[in-house]
Amino acid sequence: MTGLDSIIEQALREDIHTGDITTLAVVPERVPARARLLAKEPLVVAGLAVAGRVFTTVDAEVRFAPCWAEGARVAAGSLLAEVSGDAASLLQGERVALNLLQRLCGIATLTARYVEAVRGTGARIVDTRKTTPGLRMLEKYAVRVGGGINHRTGLYDGVLIKENHSASAGGIIAAVRRARAYIPHTLKIEVETESLDQVAEALEAGAEIIMLDNMEIGTMRQAVALIDGRALVEASGGVNLETVRAIAETGVDIISVGALTHSARAMDISMLLERG
Amino acid sequence: MTGLDSIIEQALREDIHTGDITTLAVVPERVPARARLLAKEPLVVAGLAVAGRVFTTVDAEVRFAPCWAEGARVAAGSLLAEVSGDAASLLQGERVALNLLQRLCGIATLTARYVEAVRGTGARIVDTRKTTPGLRMLEKYAVRVGGGINHRTGLYDGVLIKENHSASAGGIIAAVRRARAYIPHTLKIEVETESLDQVAEALEAGAEIIMLDNMEIGTMRQAVALIDGRALVEASGGVNLETVRAIAETGVDIISVGALTHSARAMDISMLLERG
Amino acid sequence: MTGLDSIIEQALREDIHTGDITTLAVVPERVPARARLLAKEPLVVAGLAVAGRVFTTVDAEVRFAPCWAEGARVAAGSLLAEVSGDAASLLQGERVALNLLQRLCGIATLTARYVEAVRGTGARIVDTRKTTPGLRMLEKYAVRVGGGINHRTGLYDGVLIKENHSASAGGIIAAVRRARAYIPHTLKIEVETESLDQVAEALEAGAEIIMLDNMEIGTMRQAVALIDGRALVEASGGVNLETVRAIAETGVDIISVGALTHSARAMDISMLLERG
Amino acid sequence: MTGLDSIIEQALREDIHTGDITTLAVVPERVPARARLLAKEPLVVAGLAVAGRVFTTVDAEVRFAPCWAEGARVAAGSLLAEVSGDAASLLQGERVALNLLQRLCGIATLTARYVEAVRGTGARIVDTRKTTPGLRMLEKYAVRVGGGINHRTGLYDGVLIKENHSASAGGIIAAVRRARAYIPHTLKIEVETESLDQVAEALEAGAEIIMLDNMEIGTMRQAVALIDGRALVEASGGVNLETVRAIAETGVDIISVGALTHSARAMDISMLLERG
Amino acid sequence: MTGLDSIIEQALREDIHTGDITTLAVVPERVPARARLLAKEPLVVAGLAVAGRVFTTVDAEVRFAPCWAEGARVAAGSLLAEVSGDAASLLQGERVALNLLQRLCGIATLTARYVEAVRGTGARIVDTRKTTPGLRMLEKYAVRVGGGINHRTGLYDGVLIKENHSASAGGIIAAVRRARAYIPHTLKIEVETESLDQVAEALEAGAEIIMLDNMEIGTMRQAVALIDGRALVEASGGVNLETVRAIAETGVDIISVGALTHSARAMDISMLLERG
Amino acid sequence: MTGLDSIIEQALREDIHTGDITTLAVVPERVPARARLLAKEPLVVAGLAVAGRVFTTVDAEVRFAPCWAEGARVAAGSLLAEVSGDAASLLQGERVALNLLQRLCGIATLTARYVEAVRGTGARIVDTRKTTPGLRMLEKYAVRVGGGINHRTGLYDGVLIKENHSASAGGIIAAVRRARAYIPHTLKIEVETESLDQVAEALEAGAEIIMLDNMEIGTMRQAVALIDGRALVEASGGVNLETVRAIAETGVDIISVGALTHSARAMDISMLLERG
Repeated sequence: MTGLDSIIEQALREDIHTGDITTLAVVPERVPARARLLAKEPLVVAGLAVAGRVFTTVDAEVRFAPCWAEGARVAAGSLLAEVSGDAASLLQGERVALNLLQRLCGIATLTARYVEAVRGTGARIVDTRKTTPGLRMLEKYAVRVGGGINHRTGLYDGVLIKENHSASAGGIIAAVRRARAYIPHTLKIEVETESLDQVAEALEAGAEIIMLDNMEIGTMRQAVALIDGRALVEASGGVNLETVRAIAETGVDIISVGALTHSARAMDISMLLERG
Repeated sequence: MTGLDSIIEQALREDIHTGDITTLAVVPERVPARARLLAKEPLVVAGLAVAGRVFTTVDAEVRFAPCWAEGARVAAGSLLAEVSGDAASLLQGERVALNLLQRLCGIATLTARYVEAVRGTGARIVDTRKTTPGLRMLEKYAVRVGGGINHRTGLYDGVLIKENHSASAGGIIAAVRRARAYIPHTLKIEVETESLDQVAEALEAGAEIIMLDNMEIGTMRQAVALIDGRALVEASGGVNLETVRAIAETGVDIISVGALTHSARAMDISMLLERG
Repeated sequence: MTGLDSIIEQALREDIHTGDITTLAVVPERVPARARLLAKEPLVVAGLAVAGRVFTTVDAEVRFAPCWAEGARVAAGSLLAEVSGDAASLLQGERVALNLLQRLCGIATLTARYVEAVRGTGARIVDTRKTTPGLRMLEKYAVRVGGGINHRTGLYDGVLIKENHSASAGGIIAAVRRARAYIPHTLKIEVETESLDQVAEALEAGAEIIMLDNMEIGTMRQAVALIDGRALVEASGGVNLETVRAIAETGVDIISVGALTHSARAMDISMLLERG
Repeated sequence: MTGLDSIIEQALREDIHTGDITTLAVVPERVPARARLLAKEPLVVAGLAVAGRVFTTVDAEVRFAPCWAEGARVAAGSLLAEVSGDAASLLQGERVALNLLQRLCGIATLTARYVEAVRGTGARIVDTRKTTPGLRMLEKYAVRVGGGINHRTGLYDGVLIKENHSASAGGIIAAVRRARAYIPHTLKIEVETESLDQVAEALEAGAEIIMLDNMEIGTMRQAVALIDGRALVEASGGVNLETVRAIAETGVDIISVGALTHSARAMDISMLLERG
Repeated sequence: MTGLDSIIEQALREDIHTGDITTLAVVPERVPARARLLAKEPLVVAGLAVAGRVFTTVDAEVRFAPCWAEGARVAAGSLLAEVSGDAASLLQGERVALNLLQRLCGIATLTARYVEAVRGTGARIVDTRKTTPGLRMLEKYAVRVGGGINHRTGLYDGVLIKENHSASAGGIIAAVRRARAYIPHTLKIEVETESLDQVAEALEAGAEIIMLDNMEIGTMRQAVALIDGRALVEASGGVNLETVRAIAETGVDIISVGALTHSARAMDISMLLERG
Repeated sequence: MTGLDSIIEQALREDIHTGDITTLAVVPERVPARARLLAKEPLVVAGLAVAGRVFTTVDAEVRFAPCWAEGARVAAGSLLAEVSGDAASLLQGERVALNLLQRLCGIATLTARYVEAVRGTGARIVDTRKTTPGLRMLEKYAVRVGGGINHRTGLYDGVLIKENHSASAGGIIAAVRRARAYIPHTLKIEVETESLDQVAEALEAGAEIIMLDNMEIGTMRQAVALIDGRALVEASGGVNLETVRAIAETGVDIISVGALTHSARAMDISMLLERG
């Protein structure tokens, strides 16, 4: 996974910097040890390879054995992975490995709840750009592990024409025309709409994806009918676990949820260390 | 704030990379615009200067005017700041600025709730190393804004002797002696304890801070009495908004709370853009 | 343009490194000078802002005045821009500025010749990933300036299923299905085909873009008829200035040309310096 | 080769960035494959180790077996190298490896044609600073492989006093004196001249290399006679495959050719992949 | 040791840059060789692992065998380490390895002389922030090897309130109060004093370390009596090998010596290479 | 000076890292202050612009006024420069500015003593590659300020054929021939010799510089006579302030002195701060 190494190196530098002085002062060199990573609550597993990579970055001789495939749903108390190697290396990698793993499991677990909530409808759960600065790639990975799909990665690989954009260009139709002339032919054009009139305009403009932004359930249903398969339909705004099912049942194709990444809480996972 | 610029540059690169193609395609050059950042829920303000720096990094000519001092408590609907400049620049900075601001306000707001919960006791709320990889410096800043104080920044600027460390060294007393011989004389030595026996041993070893890890309320009270002012006392583990008051009332000096940084949800803040 | 500064800084470092020793040794400090950038042959202008940025990176007080808009076609002997400032700064920026400008004008000029060659057909000229390592963003910019459009930027923002991919997945239909489940919904799926059978399979799979790879003119024409507007059609392979018109006349939408970036020669541009 | 790794890492990041989504979506993990790199036209081999390094950077387990030594002249259809390993790794490295290899073979091949053109004269072919920003070290390597030699690497490791430098210093003699007092004693001083008078002045100044810039053939011959072995003589300007022989026959020692690096076209090389 | 690799890579890049042209030109590939690192004067060994890391960074196949533990005192003529591997690799690593090793041995040796000079008193020798930019971590390591201990690493992990700080805050007592409210509870607060009145004020403020800056021996003795074990006492200023014993005998706990790092001369160490 | 900014940024990061906590805690924002940099002993000024750049890197609004030109010889007590601006900024830049300035003045002062010692002979004092890792460019600058000249910057911009190189190549003559064929024609070739026989061989090989390594004074005199102006002559090894005059009087052109950079002690310079 391109970029993963620099995230891990930066995180280790942030934590260890000039040295783990407690370990350097207190722990003898070359003491073999083993540790177990344990889920303290039920969760969807995401990021075990990332956690493993943290330990092997600290010390290439550490062995990390994951017990589950990514995406597995595990019960509280489950053993997630075993780590073995030099005690000092395990102590130095512990916090960074857990910080990443707890966050990724948190995102995958929350995503899975949304996916579950819309099961049986045609709607798919997607993420947004409301991610943690520096960790977007990993967080979007966790969304996929949880069963969601990804929206554009950033401003560079997708076109989303919002109100402000189209106003600048003289309307949705002009904006879509300009975008078509500029962007790679490999990208679809998405238009954000706030009313049925705008939906109609986006359709006429040839938008390939139409976002219904903060619409009432009833309006969404009308929009879906109006679009009638001529574009992908994305619902956005006001989505939470209480509302997502009703939104899905309007017939939209895609529901984007910022909370997946900006408000997932860390899962409770701990590392138990014992002498080797 | 050292390091802030590289966090912001990395976050912008992550989002914009080779270019904001929607804006490049659709928005004419040099359209003046203004935007308002609005709190959609009550919150403690943290990170306005950070958000401002995002916009001025995108475009040095953007003007950013914060409406509140850091640490202010504001009501839902409050105007947090005004931004003006080239429309394209505001659109390009928006998401990164909000991602950082929403997170920092979230941490400060949650910290303030913990601080409020222990008001009148002698206890202070401190953070942990359970922070977002890459953002520790900013998250610890938000904890201070919320009224907490910081634990060590990383493994390099504080000594915390845990069970595994002292076991390696042949007991707490030997571990503290080793640490004293190695570390700068400017750092205090903290020892993690899980029983009153260990507390007594840490005291004898001359630990300057004693952490009571996952102890029962009653045991904590006994530990405080046993220590009797000869070391700072830190409570850790099982802390949440329901339990924190009772913990504080045992007489501990410091209560460390991982949730401040690993599980604060983003505050709801939005940016409204209008033509200049 | 995100990334431009790091390209320029790297190029200047490569050329100047520990210092321009000739200028340091020989040229007195603070001698005002002016220079003119001249086209020694007819060309399409691309990269003047890039060249200007080189000089202002060397010395923020240099003034750079471009004489043409990007995309202008100019005659041999045309003045492209004027530069003024400290003589030492102009001498230090000269080579890097010209190296970039000559290359970008070369690409834009060659692209314009291809665009001219297909004028009146519906076909558009697009680039490929056959770019200079490290300069892709700039080279794709020059293609747009020359009237072409861009294919995907890299492996991360577009899907192109080649023979080897579909063979691994058990055929084109399975491959497209897998891609659909994995990628952002904002991206179109392109399938490379080498025969009419494969074209039919790609259509059935729902490919949004079908590449005709190294096909005979007659076969291309049949493919266009078969596809009949249900997908974008891209011709690839064996394209040069002799063949491009005939390919365009088969009715394909897109013609991709590796030579635009991998074999454009540098335009002849020189800088004449005189005392200020 | 110092610096090679960072060129390759940057090129791979540019192409792959957050991931090769086609391969990630479509190709199963761990499918063994083999590929052959084939010359589609006659060429001088340069950069096979560079191409190999691209693949092993993607995946340390890929095996790359070159079939020729650097500098070999091969016929159209020749097998250049064999690559084997995980199919996904081969697909991810292919484009970057070819982009570098095609360029380096292009430069070596063009250099070899110039070297051939002057065979039997005493003149040597050298490159210039008209290289691709970021790739100078590799391109100068390819020139050596093609039989040329290198001029200074950049402004920091050679002294070339041009008209503008000497005018600033009050003439060639003063300029050379200043340079001698400033630069390491390990570097020769080169002076650019445009007339026989300037040649005489450079000789008097003690220049160790004299560049004849854009001189007529006859004037060059006179300059060579005038210098008479007291300095190295370099011809520059107006050099192409038609003129280079005549220039060489004037008796100059060195002929510098910008086109070697700024206008060599990519050689046609392709990679054929098959299941392992 | 976190950060060591980047110091070494930077140093090698500084020295080798685009290539060791003498070795590339003259030395055949793959010639086995051995070399011995020899102390040409008596010294305290520090940095052998660093020197070894230089060679293995140049070439992972080089073998480096240290002959002494860090901190050993060796006589003139002693063999410090043996290195074996490719001759070109040994030649390329030699200068950087020696530059680092000679400096670190110099610091450890000088530190050991200071430590020796205060033997039998209770005082410990500590370093300062007067280190070589970029090498602080390594230089502080060498001080520890020589028997000293470290002061704070930088401005970020220790509090030292000087005259200028307390004047800004309205006196020592206010300054200490502000610091206590801001800094991690894991750090001690140090106050710099220049008179007995200031010592008394620092004591009242609760400073945990009191620095006696440039005081007369007699005044120091009075200060030690006044403090009477309620804070650590650090002497600073005017310390050299002639004065350090008398300072130590005043009863201070800590003596900080800038010369340890800013003026230690390089130890004379050479590398003798022979064919393998 | 290319590279200076990254040295300064790295040094400030090393010292300040996550923040100057004393100043952040204690000093109010925006307190104007002035400071004077004072020489506490006689010295040759070098690096004032570097020190100034440290302060303006911390805070672009600081004003730095040097009182002397580089290379000036000043008495003890001299005012070197005045700095004014925000008190916090002066406190944060102080240590790094002094660490660099004290070192550079130390090198320039020591160099000037060597230059003085050979005055009237034809010999010039040059530095070596025995510099501080990461600071070579600055240290070589200080040597020039002190009146010395620079040897090659690194392994990449000069050729020095040592015993080990020529042995690998089959003798000095073969080694020089190989070097001539490989290196840029702009570089001179230097050969290290340890006997008059080797000197004769180097002359025959056409070496442009001949180093006399660790030779007796008498042998050096013979070598100078033997070479008789056909190559530059460099003396190396065993050079100190006691021996350098006699070496110079043998008639060598160049004397290289490692101590200039590896063993110059820091000059005593302090900064006095007062409220603005």
